[in-house]
Amino acid sequence: MSEAAQTLEGWYALHDFRMVDWSAWKRASEDDRQGALDELHNLLEDWTGIENRQEGSTAFYSVVGQKADFMFMHLRETLEELNTLETTFNKTRLAEFTIPVYSYVSIVELSNYMGQPGTDPLENPEVVARLKPALPKAKHICFYPMNKRREGNDNWYMLSMDERKTMMRSHGMIGRSYAGRVKQIITGSVGFDDWEWGVTLFAEDALTFKKLVYEMRFDEVSARYGDFGSFYVGNLLDGEKFAQQMKV
Amino acid sequence: MSEAAQTLEGWYALHDFRMVDWSAWKRASEDDRQGALDELHNLLEDWTGIENRQEGSTAFYSVVGQKADFMFMHLRETLEELNTLETTFNKTRLAEFTIPVYSYVSIVELSNYMGQPGTDPLENPEVVARLKPALPKAKHICFYPMNKRREGNDNWYMLSMDERKTMMRSHGMIGRSYAGRVKQIITGSVGFDDWEWGVTLFAEDALTFKKLVYEMRFDEVSARYGDFGSFYVGNLLDGEKFAQQMKV
Amino acid sequence: MSEAAQTLEGWYALHDFRMVDWSAWKRASEDDRQGALDELHNLLEDWTGIENRQEGSTAFYSVVGQKADFMFMHLRETLEELNTLETTFNKTRLAEFTIPVYSYVSIVELSNYMGQPGTDPLENPEVVARLKPALPKAKHICFYPMNKRREGNDNWYMLSMDERKTMMRSHGMIGRSYAGRVKQIITGSVGFDDWEWGVTLFAEDALTFKKLVYEMRFDEVSARYGDFGSFYVGNLLDGEKFAQQMKV
Amino acid sequence: MSEAAQTLEGWYALHDFRMVDWSAWKRASEDDRQGALDELHNLLEDWTGIENRQEGSTAFYSVVGQKADFMFMHLRETLEELNTLETTFNKTRLAEFTIPVYSYVSIVELSNYMGQPGTDPLENPEVVARLKPALPKAKHICFYPMNKRREGNDNWYMLSMDERKTMMRSHGMIGRSYAGRVKQIITGSVGFDDWEWGVTLFAEDALTFKKLVYEMRFDEVSARYGDFGSFYVGNLLDGEKFAQQMKV
Amino acid sequence: MSEAAQTLEGWYALHDFRMVDWSAWKRASEDDRQGALDELHNLLEDWTGIENRQEGSTAFYSVVGQKADFMFMHLRETLEELNTLETTFNKTRLAEFTIPVYSYVSIVELSNYMGQPGTDPLENPEVVARLKPALPKAKHICFYPMNKRREGNDNWYMLSMDERKTMMRSHGMIGRSYAGRVKQIITGSVGFDDWEWGVTLFAEDALTFKKLVYEMRFDEVSARYGDFGSFYVGNLLDGEKFAQQMKV
Repeated sequence: MSEAAQTLEGWYALHDFRMVDWSAWKRASEDDRQGALDELHNLLEDWTGIENRQEGSTAFYSVVGQKADFMFMHLRETLEELNTLETTFNKTRLAEFTIPVYSYVSIVELSNYMGQPGTDPLENPEVVARLKPALPKAKHICFYPMNKRREGNDNWYMLSMDERKTMMRSHGMIGRSYAGRVKQIITGSVGFDDWEWGVTLFAEDALTFKKLVYEMRFDEVSARYGDFGSFYVGNLLDGEKFAQQMKV
Repeated sequence: MSEAAQTLEGWYALHDFRMVDWSAWKRASEDDRQGALDELHNLLEDWTGIENRQEGSTAFYSVVGQKADFMFMHLRETLEELNTLETTFNKTRLAEFTIPVYSYVSIVELSNYMGQPGTDPLENPEVVARLKPALPKAKHICFYPMNKRREGNDNWYMLSMDERKTMMRSHGMIGRSYAGRVKQIITGSVGFDDWEWGVTLFAEDALTFKKLVYEMRFDEVSARYGDFGSFYVGNLLDGEKFAQQMKV
Repeated sequence: MSEAAQTLEGWYALHDFRMVDWSAWKRASEDDRQGALDELHNLLEDWTGIENRQEGSTAFYSVVGQKADFMFMHLRETLEELNTLETTFNKTRLAEFTIPVYSYVSIVELSNYMGQPGTDPLENPEVVARLKPALPKAKHICFYPMNKRREGNDNWYMLSMDERKTMMRSHGMIGRSYAGRVKQIITGSVGFDDWEWGVTLFAEDALTFKKLVYEMRFDEVSARYGDFGSFYVGNLLDGEKFAQQMKV
Repeated sequence: MSEAAQTLEGWYALHDFRMVDWSAWKRASEDDRQGALDELHNLLEDWTGIENRQEGSTAFYSVVGQKADFMFMHLRETLEELNTLETTFNKTRLAEFTIPVYSYVSIVELSNYMGQPGTDPLENPEVVARLKPALPKAKHICFYPMNKRREGNDNWYMLSMDERKTMMRSHGMIGRSYAGRVKQIITGSVGFDDWEWGVTLFAEDALTFKKLVYEMRFDEVSARYGDFGSFYVGNLLDGEKFAQQMKV
Repeated sequence: MSEAAQTLEGWYALHDFRMVDWSAWKRASEDDRQGALDELHNLLEDWTGIENRQEGSTAFYSVVGQKADFMFMHLRETLEELNTLETTFNKTRLAEFTIPVYSYVSIVELSNYMGQPGTDPLENPEVVARLKPALPKAKHICFYPMNKRREGNDNWYMLSMDERKTMMRSHGMIGRSYAGRVKQIITGSVGFDDWEWGVTLFAEDALTFKKLVYEMRFDEVSARYGDFGSFYVGNLLDGEKFAQQMKV
């Protein structure tokens, strides 16, 4: 039996993708539309309060292309809070004009491949800050789920801890060369959703997503052992930008 | 020909996942909504009676994310009872506000890989209790279906009974190290549904699902021979919690 | 080139799975519902007449879980008759309350792997009865489509006739050990539908489906060469049971 | 680099599969239904005129099972004509009662694996007739798309021209043994649709489809190198038969 | 670790495929239909202005078959502009009669496999023109997404830069032999959408798409390392042609 890597977990995460039902939205009265936007505005303010109290964090982005019109990424302490959040949104007037198209349930995770033996990572404030992060307000977001492959000779889970450590180190070095340009949040979803991990990237320049993911694909960890799901890319929203986007 | 493991079967299981049609629910009158909740309340009471008479068991959980809003896991003596249950629910007023999104048909199963030769497991009251269990009221549930892989050199069904026994024993030891933290119910679905097994886990701390499933993934049984379907995770419901969740 | 097994064909088969639109059904007037059930009753009587005249056979079962609410398995002499049957049902009032969810087109098939050289199987009345069978009224049905695998070293169609014959004989012996408990109807669908065969099992005890399919899965024919589609399991219906199930 | 086989192309092909919305059809007035059928009748006459002028050809068949209720196979000189055809049908009253469920875009193709060196196939009137054929009015149709496999050691496109020629010759001999019983039209769809070829078979006896496709499956070209999509099988229609089928 | 090829990026691309809801379109008043077409006409004029100012480019084509009725390919400087474009279209009256069916997000890309060492490609005006191209008004378009394969021994990303360079050169030579007949625009979508690249081809003769893609399929780069998604093929549209197509 191969040894499992130690992982540290922080806040639970819910990625929530929605399409707008534009025909229904346009049929609604100006009052109904304004009411729906006001209600969302209040929700966004509540969520900002939660972020300020460091009890969670929420990112709000449009999604380019037909996969969705917008998405939330919510971080909270418990699955119950995520469930309540979801239900609260589903009861809003805005939700009546949206169609849920994709979601992802996971938990912020740091893997210990790079950990120093003999130290308690949870005493490291930087580690704690990464487990319960305030999500960036970068101009762009990129989300994709992924698995480590288990196929024939390319079976990540049959490798020794040392082999995995060596490969993850090389992988991490590519990531580090993008420090300052990309903020990456890894969320684990084994036992929670259909893939093993979610990767959420934030950057000021969306091209950085392509450069980073493409460079990594030549790294053995991705080349031989990475299986990737759908990619979603979007632009930063806030209450005003969203109201502008929804103006008909 | 490789020898099939002996299995023991208990109650049939139906996992039944539903989405709420929130727009229709909000359009309904307060009376209609209350009537729907009252009817569900009565159903839940009936099912509690069945559980008290040890004729079956039902678990009721929310589902986090867009895959579903809530789920039932029903255990009953026969497929006919499960069919009646399903039809009874479909005729309720609440069902008019829900959309069926996934279901799974299986039967509680104990495999005999760990059995003692020369003993009749059905004379063991603990075995009988595991075949016809009262489902836990743990805070969290996790469900996923799975297959044993049959691909190239990774073909579980071509292994000898001894090879399988050895691997299953190591697998079971991981499971046992989670005893007290996770309650696991294995249901067999060969001949009943699209995967070979359903796995339902119950825990007070949802993170335990991730820790357990991730640790097992490095075990050869999962690493080389496990193929997994969609994962569903949720929070315990009862009549009051559900009424609260549905309050608009 | 590997030699194709000789096959004998009998009646064409249409498996027809339907969901009930419960909301529409409940909205309908009591008269409309009764009219729909009466019309189905007449259809069922027509089909019984056909069965009595040995011009075909029809099985009628509920389906457990959300895949469907009920299914018909129709056997008829020609594809034209199956098409007419389907259209006739689509024009009924009941059809307005149902949603087609899955169907399968095939033909009753006996493979000659077990045939005796020098004999004409069509002179054997038992063979003829198996090609144009009256479908059992067993309490349970199980249906699944399947392929023989063609992947890398596991390519059924590249094996010699002798290798296939030997494996099929072992496979058939498992089947025979279930004689009296399971009635199996194999229908070929190469050129007709998306898989190569349909397997329809009938049994008084649904658990027998699991035992049989699971035991066979360890047999090389299934372990290395079997690819399986979705499984459907259900309970025997007739006009009265169906009326009871539909009563709101 | 392996050498591509030379191919000859004729008319473009559009296979167009439609379901009937039976509830809407039944709700329509007798006048509306008759008007829809009359309009279709006129279209069928137009298409017969085109066939008579050898500017194209159209086949019209029902489809058995729930995949579709009927299908057209249209052959025309250009993609623009196919587009116009499609749009013309979409504007008819009948189209309002149908749901498009599948289509396939391809072009009639003859491969030159069997060609004689030193001859110009386009001077051969038989070749030209096969590239721009009048579609048969056989009682049954069978359609399926397919690829040549490119997986591991089973990679058609890495074989030498000679290897492919030898295998295709053997394959063609099976086909020829069905001459007179099956008419086969191969259409190429590389660059046009999701598979590499479409295969359309016409026969008086639908069982011939099964016999032919099954026998070919043991031939190395199919056994090792054939990947097949969905199969559709149907019965010949014309204006009167269709009116009969639609009569409510 | 294998070295990633250098790439140059230009404009972002959005391929946007739409179906027409013909029943709704026919139910609309002549005024509403004309209004919708006029609004589209204005949009097309705006987009022409953008193209004239070299700030982007838009192609407008019908799609043959049921996959879509028409498509836009938009090139713009930023993801924000693409998002605005999409939202602007979604708010039009025409959008109320269309259903989004597929989209693709990518960025115009030139790979440096053929680059000359020691030169700065961005000083080459031809390179710049290819990164920010005015899309051709060719009679036909073909679009498909693709991956480089990573499976067992066929893993593109584990090859050395030299091996990849040699293969890409041979691949490029096939492409060049079609110069003048096909205009090819490669867009990279790693990090943006579900495949690694989008390929958009333009030609006066649609048959050229088939000839080119088929010939390339025998080239090792495609034969062993190419995985292809759905293919879409269509005919050039403009405001008048579209109005003609929509005339009911």
